[in-house]
Amino acid sequence: MKFYDCTTAPSPRRVRIFLAEKGISVPTVQVDLRNNEQLTPAFRAINPDATVPSLELDGGTRINDAIGICVYFEAIHPQPPLLGESAEEKALVTSWQREVERNGFYAVMEAFRNWARGLKGRALPGPYDYEQIPALAERGRLRVGHFFEQMDARLAQSEFVAGARYTIADITALVTVDFAASAKLTIPESHAHLRRWHAQVSARPSAKA
Amino acid sequence: MKFYDCTTAPSPRRVRIFLAEKGISVPTVQVDLRNNEQLTPAFRAINPDATVPSLELDGGTRINDAIGICVYFEAIHPQPPLLGESAEEKALVTSWQREVERNGFYAVMEAFRNWARGLKGRALPGPYDYEQIPALAERGRLRVGHFFEQMDARLAQSEFVAGARYTIADITALVTVDFAASAKLTIPESHAHLRRWHAQVSARPSAKA
Repeated sequence: MKFYDCTTAPSPRRVRIFLAEKGISVPTVQVDLRNNEQLTPAFRAINPDATVPSLELDGGTRINDAIGICVYFEAIHPQPPLLGESAEEKALVTSWQREVERNGFYAVMEAFRNWARGLKGRALPGPYDYEQIPALAERGRLRVGHFFEQMDARLAQSEFVAGARYTIADITALVTVDFAASAKLTIPESHAHLRRWHAQVSARPSAKA
Repeated sequence: MKFYDCTTAPSPRRVRIFLAEKGISVPTVQVDLRNNEQLTPAFRAINPDATVPSLELDGGTRINDAIGICVYFEAIHPQPPLLGESAEEKALVTSWQREVERNGFYAVMEAFRNWARGLKGRALPGPYDYEQIPALAERGRLRVGHFFEQMDARLAQSEFVAGARYTIADITALVTVDFAASAKLTIPESHAHLRRWHAQVSARPSAKA
C-alpha cells in the first residue's frame, strides 16, 4: 500500500488526521505540488485527475479522493468509528461532512486559489488550467465569513460538528479553518462556540498530522 | 418519514433515482423553489441551509443532503447495493461519485446559476444571496466540456462510471448530464462512449424519477 501525500496541502491532511485518529500508518510518498509534480505524465499515470491524495492498494487499485480513502480505512479498520455507526449517525456524519466541505472547504479554495500569486492560471486543482477570477476570490471571502457564522451556530448546540462525538466532519472543519488562516481568514473573536471547538479539536494529537 | 423534494431540481432527483433503484417509496412534500419557498422561515426551521432535498426521520432527525439521505437508505435497505460492497468497491464508488460531482455537477451549477436570468442575485443555493459572475458562467462551460472528455475516456474502459455495475456514481453522472442540457451543454457527437453509457442508464426505469 502506498499513500501519495503533500504535507503542505489541505486535502491530504484530511486523510493524515483520519489515519492518526485510527492509529494507522501507511508508507507515504511526497508529491511536490510546488513544482507541479502532479501534472507530470508519471503522476498522471497514477491519478489522471492530477490531484493528491491518492492511495494505491496492494492489488494495484488506486483511490483518488480523500474521502474515498477514508471510506476504505473505515471499512478495514472500523475502530474508532469516524463515519458513524447506526444508519442515522452515518447519514448525519455524511451530511455534515459534505455541508462543511461545500460551504467551507470549497469557499476557502475559491478565496485562496483566485488570490494567491503563485496560483495564477491555476485557479482550480486538476489537469486543466483556469485563470483566476478576482470576483470569485472576493465571493470566497464572503462565503467563509458566512461559514464561520453557520458553524458557530451549530457548535452552540453540539459538542462536535455532527453530534456528540468526533467524526470526519470535524476533520474537514478543522482542515478548513486552518486552510482559511492561510488565506488570512480567521475566526472572529465573537464566535465563541467555534473558537471553543477549534481549540478542543486542535489539542488532539491527530491535529499535528 | 417525510421527503422534501422539488421535481424540477437536480439534487433531489439524485435521491429519487436512488430510491427507484431500491424500489422504496417515501411520503413526499414538494418545496416550491421557483417561488423561493426554501428561504421561508417555515422551511428554514426544517433545513437551516435552505436547500432540498431533506429527509425527516420518524424520530424527528433531519438529513439535509442528497448523499447523506442515500447513505441512510443504503444502511437500512442494502439491496441492490448502490454504494459498493467490499472495502475497495465502497472506496471506488465514493471516489467516482465525488469526482463526477466536483468536476461535473458543480461545473454545471457554475455555468447554469451564473447565467440563468431567473437566478440573478442567487448564484449559489442556500440562505445567502450572491451575485452572478459572468466569468464564472464561462468557466463553468469550459469545465463541463472537460468533464465530458474525462467521462468519455473513463467509459471507454468501464461499463459504468465506478466499474462493472451501476452505482450512485452513475446516478450523479446521469443527473449532471441531464442538468447540463438545461444549460444548453450537450455531449459532443464524438464522445461515443459517454453517449453509449448515457443511452444505457437513461433506459433504466429509475431514470424517469
